[in-house]
Amino acid sequence: MTLDRCCIHTITTKPWALPEAVEKYAAAGVKGISVWQNATEGIGPRRAGEIIRAAGLEIVSYVRGGFFPNTSSAGRAQAIDQNKKLLEEAAALAAPMIVLVCGASPDQSLDISRNQIREGIEAILPLAEKLNVKLAIEPLHPMYAADRSAINTLAQANDMAEFFKSDYVGVAVDVYHLWWDPQLEKEIARCGANGNLFAYHVCDWKVNTIDLLNDRGLMGEGCIDLKKIRSWVEATGFKGFCEVEIFSNIHWAKDQDIFLKEVTEAFILHV
Amino acid sequence: MTLDRCCIHTITTKPWALPEAVEKYAAAGVKGISVWQNATEGIGPRRAGEIIRAAGLEIVSYVRGGFFPNTSSAGRAQAIDQNKKLLEEAAALAAPMIVLVCGASPDQSLDISRNQIREGIEAILPLAEKLNVKLAIEPLHPMYAADRSAINTLAQANDMAEFFKSDYVGVAVDVYHLWWDPQLEKEIARCGANGNLFAYHVCDWKVNTIDLLNDRGLMGEGCIDLKKIRSWVEATGFKGFCEVEIFSNIHWAKDQDIFLKEVTEAFILHV
Repeated sequence: MTLDRCCIHTITTKPWALPEAVEKYAAAGVKGISVWQNATEGIGPRRAGEIIRAAGLEIVSYVRGGFFPNTSSAGRAQAIDQNKKLLEEAAALAAPMIVLVCGASPDQSLDISRNQIREGIEAILPLAEKLNVKLAIEPLHPMYAADRSAINTLAQANDMAEFFKSDYVGVAVDVYHLWWDPQLEKEIARCGANGNLFAYHVCDWKVNTIDLLNDRGLMGEGCIDLKKIRSWVEATGFKGFCEVEIFSNIHWAKDQDIFLKEVTEAFILHV
Repeated sequence: MTLDRCCIHTITTKPWALPEAVEKYAAAGVKGISVWQNATEGIGPRRAGEIIRAAGLEIVSYVRGGFFPNTSSAGRAQAIDQNKKLLEEAAALAAPMIVLVCGASPDQSLDISRNQIREGIEAILPLAEKLNVKLAIEPLHPMYAADRSAINTLAQANDMAEFFKSDYVGVAVDVYHLWWDPQLEKEIARCGANGNLFAYHVCDWKVNTIDLLNDRGLMGEGCIDLKKIRSWVEATGFKGFCEVEIFSNIHWAKDQDIFLKEVTEAFILHV
């Protein structure tokens, strides 16, 4: 598709500091940016927002909150405080939403972690509403269930989002985490019908993945049928950005100008 | 649990040839063995079966068939032939069942692969019935959906097994692939109620998994609640073996006598 709805997560071009990323994205014709917390370090979220808007880019999301589960109540309280701080930063940045990587602890059951996630979202929701910053629950691939997220399917994320009955709690659909799920089409339709489809993330799944975390593929490098999944997303009426979010030691090691060109070309060709 | 229902897959102690593995397992008090095809090379399945029975071990399964999907019809026909050959070998070994890693192709949709899996099982089922060798569909973790299996949840495996309405088609439940699934307890109950719970495999999920294929954990090394999942399996009336199946570059690099001792101790403590 054209770049009009192309957004890039700053982590995708990790070697670039925020001002450089902003300048390069805008020059490449990209229209949106999702800002990772590390990208605002040294600048602060308010100044980061000014730099981004001055370049004509739209801020799509601030990444990332969550990580609520903890075997100790002090640890859970600390996680809630960190999420509140993140919401304040998102408001200073003027980002409309934060993405929640919900968390998990290998030292307790997934059910307990899921309850703690619900309690965590409950605890930060009033501040999110007050600051007008939405919360997007991102289900993570089951290979991250040990310590990154106990929410591993779109069905679970939909259940969680619907529980809150709030315009401020929805879901981020990332193809990397969900492409394999036989229920995906059905659950995307459900998510959209409930007004809970807040974000759509793209990259690709490489057939010979060599690292569980940092070996995502550029769109077209793997086996995900991106056009089909986007058709399901758009069938719900979703008109938001398609956000490119690639963690890759291989791509980070490249000249990032060349990589950005590959990203925009792949976006036009494969998304 | 005690070793009375302990079975080990030959791949777990890959450095050992079959005769050595058989001798060592029996001496350690292990009662069952699941034989990988590579372990019979040079011996042949008939002689392998004699060696195993002479040592007093029970043969639990022959591993592994499947890999049905292929973009070419010639490739699919070849896969069916290979599965028929595997069934003949299982009969010569006198194994009661083969395990099916169903297969997937990154060059076609998961739906097409799932149809081809159904067609493949359909094609080999008459021979399985004739030889009295059961077929256990093993759902694989979603991280293997690109090229190893398009059957990634127990719900899908149950659907597939129930489709055939045959005493010869059932399911192998492996904790490594399924532990994360919020539907697991329900689907194990369904599987058992339909008489389709043919096999139960154990190992562990390491929190910092460094290799997608060969970094499985010894029971107790990871975060899977093995006793809880076994309680669900046994609640269905399952009285079969708990099969230890560990692929691990780390454990294979050890002295295998020491590793076997760790396996039996972990089995008693954690399974």
